[in-house]
Amino acid sequence: MNFENLRDLMIENRTVRRFNQSRAVDYDILVKLVELTRCCPSGRNAQPLRYRLVTSTEEKAKVFPLLKWAGYFKDWDGPSEGERPTAYIVQCLDTAFGSNCLCDDGLQLEAITLGMHTMGLGGCIIKAFNVVELSRVLELNEQYVPRYVPRYVLALGYPAEKVKIEEMSGSPDADFKYFRTPDGIHHVPKRPLSELILPHR
Amino acid sequence: MNFENLRDLMIENRTVRRFNQSRAVDYDILVKLVELTRCCPSGRNAQPLRYRLVTSTEEKAKVFPLLKWAGYFKDWDGPSEGERPTAYIVQCLDTAFGSNCLCDDGLQLEAITLGMHTMGLGGCIIKAFNVVELSRVLELNEQYVPRYVPRYVLALGYPAEKVKIEEMSGSPDADFKYFRTPDGIHHVPKRPLSELILPHR
Repeated sequence: MNFENLRDLMIENRTVRRFNQSRAVDYDILVKLVELTRCCPSGRNAQPLRYRLVTSTEEKAKVFPLLKWAGYFKDWDGPSEGERPTAYIVQCLDTAFGSNCLCDDGLQLEAITLGMHTMGLGGCIIKAFNVVELSRVLELNEQYVPRYVPRYVLALGYPAEKVKIEEMSGSPDADFKYFRTPDGIHHVPKRPLSELILPHR
Repeated sequence: MNFENLRDLMIENRTVRRFNQSRAVDYDILVKLVELTRCCPSGRNAQPLRYRLVTSTEEKAKVFPLLKWAGYFKDWDGPSEGERPTAYIVQCLDTAFGSNCLCDDGLQLEAITLGMHTMGLGGCIIKAFNVVELSRVLELNEQYVPRYVPRYVLALGYPAEKVKIEEMSGSPDADFKYFRTPDGIHHVPKRPLSELILPHR
């Protein structure tokens, strides 16, 4: 794989929040995605992250109401029936190895989402969810032993929406909020490269 | 690019700490690497991370002494002259957008390190460094305006060491510390896939 292939993959790999709910994601696919995280860099090489995989109809129905979607869309409560995620990958910290994981969480989520895109899947990394309830409904822990703490929920499935990158101006007060147009397309403004690089003074 | 190509890239993409110091990394290559971060997912789409690129001999000499290397190697202070990094990418948080970046840091560092590998580069994500001194020597901020805070230093260059993944046992007290053998090879134990997936109770 060369640099250009990888860059194209990263540009194409957009967050999606609406899915083809009639097309299931196999449990084995989730396992393959988690396998990508195995060799990611890890702070102190402790490798403290674990994954709870959710594919059953029953569990999905318990997980979905605990998630908050697209904070900027005040009049949208998340995907409606028919376009909901068909699987969840719940990233948990094994607190036996400490109370933080440095940047392991993002390193691994990038690996997983890139892997998803190569398989035609899409998804959304969600931080706004009810941690206590999620731990409870997924029975992450033995009673009185709160070892595994969910950090991110990756909602996924086969995409049923179009997402388009928009060029942001480099002005300091440029609006970075994503938005949706009447044609249903989700637009994501991204900063210009020049803004990402700090000057040599 | 298919899933297997991506998986192979991730397996091959090992952290390295010793470099061919005689082979420079062009500034333009660092810019291409930062460009990969532009389209990464971002919490609230705020995109608060910025990069300071270091390639000059003078600045590299100032950055190197501020870094701590390979915490498990008590008798190794880091790469010696001749095998030091030939560039640094300093990831900074623009605190104008808040005091944290969720997992944007890791998402972007994974993108950059994968890109590095496609170009034959290697590196090490470093969290243990003198934040105040680094900010000072790189003049990250205007006087009295501490806006940009360095979060990670990615030391990079063309690799001059071999790194090998070792299979860890799934036992709870298995040793996860990396180690170096007399032949100079750096060994990194990685947990078995089975350990990464939490059971359904």
